[in-house]
Amino acid sequence: MQLPSSLMIALDRRSKLPLQDQLADGIRARIRDGRLGAGDRLPSTRELAGELEISRNTVIAAYERLLGEGYLESRLRSGIHVSPGLDPFLPRDAQKPTVPDPPPRPGPVEPLVGPRPFRPCQPDVRLFPLALWNRMRNRALKQQGAGLLHYQSRHALGLPALRMALAGYLRTSRGVRCDWQQIAVTGGSQQALFLLAQLLLRSGDRVGVEDPGYPGARAACERAGAKLVPLPVDGQGWIPDGKPRSLKWIYTTPSRQFPTGACLPVARRMAMLEQARRLGAWVLEDDYDSEFRYARPPLPSLHSLDPEGRVIYLGSMSKILFPSLRIGYAVLPPELVGPFEALRWVVDDHGPLVDQATLARFLSSGAFLTHIRRCRKTYAARLEAFLEATRKAGLPLEFPHTDGGMNQTGLFLDRQTDDAAISRRLEREGWDVPPLSRYGLRPGSFRPGLVFGFTAFDPRCIRQAVSQMARLIVAAG
Amino acid sequence: MQLPSSLMIALDRRSKLPLQDQLADGIRARIRDGRLGAGDRLPSTRELAGELEISRNTVIAAYERLLGEGYLESRLRSGIHVSPGLDPFLPRDAQKPTVPDPPPRPGPVEPLVGPRPFRPCQPDVRLFPLALWNRMRNRALKQQGAGLLHYQSRHALGLPALRMALAGYLRTSRGVRCDWQQIAVTGGSQQALFLLAQLLLRSGDRVGVEDPGYPGARAACERAGAKLVPLPVDGQGWIPDGKPRSLKWIYTTPSRQFPTGACLPVARRMAMLEQARRLGAWVLEDDYDSEFRYARPPLPSLHSLDPEGRVIYLGSMSKILFPSLRIGYAVLPPELVGPFEALRWVVDDHGPLVDQATLARFLSSGAFLTHIRRCRKTYAARLEAFLEATRKAGLPLEFPHTDGGMNQTGLFLDRQTDDAAISRRLEREGWDVPPLSRYGLRPGSFRPGLVFGFTAFDPRCIRQAVSQMARLIVAAG
Repeated sequence: MQLPSSLMIALDRRSKLPLQDQLADGIRARIRDGRLGAGDRLPSTRELAGELEISRNTVIAAYERLLGEGYLESRLRSGIHVSPGLDPFLPRDAQKPTVPDPPPRPGPVEPLVGPRPFRPCQPDVRLFPLALWNRMRNRALKQQGAGLLHYQSRHALGLPALRMALAGYLRTSRGVRCDWQQIAVTGGSQQALFLLAQLLLRSGDRVGVEDPGYPGARAACERAGAKLVPLPVDGQGWIPDGKPRSLKWIYTTPSRQFPTGACLPVARRMAMLEQARRLGAWVLEDDYDSEFRYARPPLPSLHSLDPEGRVIYLGSMSKILFPSLRIGYAVLPPELVGPFEALRWVVDDHGPLVDQATLARFLSSGAFLTHIRRCRKTYAARLEAFLEATRKAGLPLEFPHTDGGMNQTGLFLDRQTDDAAISRRLEREGWDVPPLSRYGLRPGSFRPGLVFGFTAFDPRCIRQAVSQMARLIVAAG
Repeated sequence: MQLPSSLMIALDRRSKLPLQDQLADGIRARIRDGRLGAGDRLPSTRELAGELEISRNTVIAAYERLLGEGYLESRLRSGIHVSPGLDPFLPRDAQKPTVPDPPPRPGPVEPLVGPRPFRPCQPDVRLFPLALWNRMRNRALKQQGAGLLHYQSRHALGLPALRMALAGYLRTSRGVRCDWQQIAVTGGSQQALFLLAQLLLRSGDRVGVEDPGYPGARAACERAGAKLVPLPVDGQGWIPDGKPRSLKWIYTTPSRQFPTGACLPVARRMAMLEQARRLGAWVLEDDYDSEFRYARPPLPSLHSLDPEGRVIYLGSMSKILFPSLRIGYAVLPPELVGPFEALRWVVDDHGPLVDQATLARFLSSGAFLTHIRRCRKTYAARLEAFLEATRKAGLPLEFPHTDGGMNQTGLFLDRQTDDAAISRRLEREGWDVPPLSRYGLRPGSFRPGLVFGFTAFDPRCIRQAVSQMARLIVAAG
C-alpha cells in the first residue's frame, strides 16, 4: 500500500468525544479496514497536526495510545508505522486480543418475568416436568446423535417421529383423522397462521373472523392484504346467518370461542361447514386450549365433521407445555402440504430439531397425557377458586362460560361500562386484565367485559388479586 | 336428543372398505360428534338394513363391533342404544380409552442422516461441545427459571443477554459497531432475509443479486415480488460497473463470495457502498462463514465501512455451532428495528428462548471463541487434505480461492464442460457435489465448476471420496 498523503480523518469539534479519541478511533478504523496496511508509515505528529489544524499534543496522545495498543510501532529514525503481522480481528490461540473493547453496555434491561394476574392464555410453567423433559432430550441426543444437529431441510414440516406422534394424539383425543404427512410443525400456531395467510390469501380477499376474536389471526390476514369481515358471536359462538357473503376463509375457535369462551354447538358447526362449502371458503379451526375442559369431554373438532378437506386444524404446545418452546402445528389438506413446505423453506428453512425430537418422545411415552391430566386437575381447582372469589367480592360481572379453558370472560352487568378505562386503571395498579373491547372490530357492538386468565396463578394469589381488583372495578363500574 | 329417524349414513359401494366397516365408522363418528347422544336408541337392524338397502347381516356385524367397543349397549326389549357416560375423547385418570386406535403407520421414513461428501456449507457437528452446551443450558434454566419458559413477546428480537453478547462479538471480531438493540435474533439467517424482503421490497422492485449467488436470498426476494437483477462476479467478487441501474437492494457476500469464494477488495467495497448511496439502495451483507479464514485475518465488514446505515449485516450460528439450532441474526439500521419487530410478531411471535439463553452464556463465557478456534484448526487441515487430494487425483479443475471458508469451488479447465451433467453423475453414485451453474441466473455466463464443501468430513474420508470421484469426473470431463 502507498503511503497515505493524508489520513483524511474528519474530526467533529462539537462532539463530546475528545479530539485525541476521535483521531485514535479514526486511525484504528483505517488499519482495521485495510486502508492503512502493515508497515505503512504515518505522517509525523507535526505534519498531521498541521493538516488537521489541531494541537500537536493531541496527535502525540493519539499515537501513544495506539503504540500502547500495538496498532503502531515506532522505528528508529523512520517514524511511526503500522505494526506488521497485525491481526486485530480474530483472537488466535497464541495471541490475546490486543484491543480491549468496552464490555457491552448493560442498558435498560429488565429480568425475564412471568405474567401478572390475570393475563389470559398463560399456562403455569411451574407444573411442567422440566427434569423429565431434559432426560428425554438427553436420550434423544444420545440415540439420534449428529443427525439431529444437521440441517434437515427435507423435514421442513417437522421430524417424522413428531408428526406421527401428533397424528396419534389428534386421532384419539380430538377425533382428527389424518395421515401424519398432513401435519406441519410450525413455530407456534402463529407461524401456521402466517404461512397459511401467505399461501391462501391474495390482496383484497375477504376473510371472516370472529368478533370479538383473536388478534394474531387478524394480523396474519391483514399482512397478506386481506380485508377483515367481522363475524358476530353470541353465547354459543359464531352465529349462522346464511347471508351469502363472499369469503376466502373463515377463522374460528369452535371448541372455546376466543375470548368469550362459548362452545359452538354441533348444529352450528354443521351450518358453518355448509356455509364454507357454498362459499368455497377455507375454515381455519384454531383449537388453542381444548385440552382444558374440566366438566364434560370436548365436542369433536370441526375437522372431524368435514368430509371435504376444507378445514385446516391448528394446535399449539404453548399452552400445554410452555410458551417459549414455540411449537405449534397445522393439519393440512393433502393438496396444501407441498406448497406449505416450499413456503416454509423460504421463510426460515425449518424449525429447531432437538426440541422436536424431545417432544416426539414426550408424546409417545405418555408423559404428555399425564401432564395434561395434572394441569387439568390443577386448573379446575383454580377455576373454582377464581369463580368463588369473584362471587365473594361482588364483582359487577357475569361469567357465562365456566366449564373450562384458561380464561374467564366476565361481562359487565351494566352495558354502559367503559371496559377499556377499567382495564387501564387496573394496569396502573400492576394488573393485566385486558378489556373485551380490545378483541373487537366493531366498537360497541358487544357487551363490555374483562378477560381473566386464571391458570398461571395459585388459588391464594387468585383470591388476593380478585379482592384487590374488586375495589377498583366496583369503584369504577 | 331426539331419536334419529335415520342415521343418514352414506355408503360408498365402490370403496375398498367393506360396507360393515363404513357403517361402523359412520355410527362411531356420529357418536363422537354428538349427533347421536348418550342413551339414544338406534334403528333396529331390520329397519336400518332396509333404509340403506344393505344386507341385515352387515348391520348386525357393524352393531356387534360397536357393542364390543363399548359405543353401544343392548337393552332387554328396547333394542340398541348409545352407551351412557361415554367419554371417547379424553383419557381420564380412572378410565382407559375405550376405543383402541391403530398406532400411527410407520410410513416411508428414513433415519436422520448427515451430509454426504461434499455437500457445501456443512459444519462438522461432531466438533461441537454438546456436553458443555447442555451444562450451560441447565444453568440457564436453573438461574432464569420460569421466566425463560413463558411468552416473552417483548423480546421478539431475542433475549437482551444474547443480543448484547452478539454485539460484543461482532465488535471485536468483525468490526461491526452497533448498539445491541439493533441486533435481531432470527430463525436462521434465512428468516432475517425473508423478513427484510417482506419489509423493504414491494412487488416489481429490482434487487441486485450476485451471479452466481445464494439461492435462499433470491427466493426471499422473489417471494416479495421483486425482480432479480444479476450482478456478475469475477475472481474478486462483485464487479463495479458504475452503470446507473435502479436497484432497491443489493445482496452480497463480500467476505467470501458464495459460492465462488472470492474476497471483495476494499476498493470494490467502497465502490459498492458508493453505488448503493447513489441508488438509495440497501446493502445486505451476508457474512455467512467469515469465521473460517485460515491464513489471513478477514477484511473488515462492509458494515464497518458504512457511515450511512444502509448496510444490513447478516450472520448465522448454523455454520459455527450446528445448523438445526436455527439461530441467525441481523444488525439493523435503527429505523428498521421497530418495523422488523412488529413483522416478526405477526410471523411467529418470537423464537425459542431456552436455546437463546444458552447461546448467550456460550458466547459470553468464551466457549464460543474456543470452539471457533478448534474448528478453524480442524478445517484448515481438511482444506489442506482436500487440495492435496485433488492435486494427486489430477482433477481437471482449478481452485482459485484456497484461503478459507467451508467450500472450495473448482472451475473446469475446459470451459465447455457440462457441470450439471457431471454433478448428476456424481449424485447417482451417492455423492453430493452441486454444479456451479446451479447457483447462476444467466446460463453459460460463467465458467462451469463444482462446489465442494470439505468441512464436515475427516481427511481420510476426503481422500477416499476425491479419488473415487476423480475417475468419474475425468471420464466425463
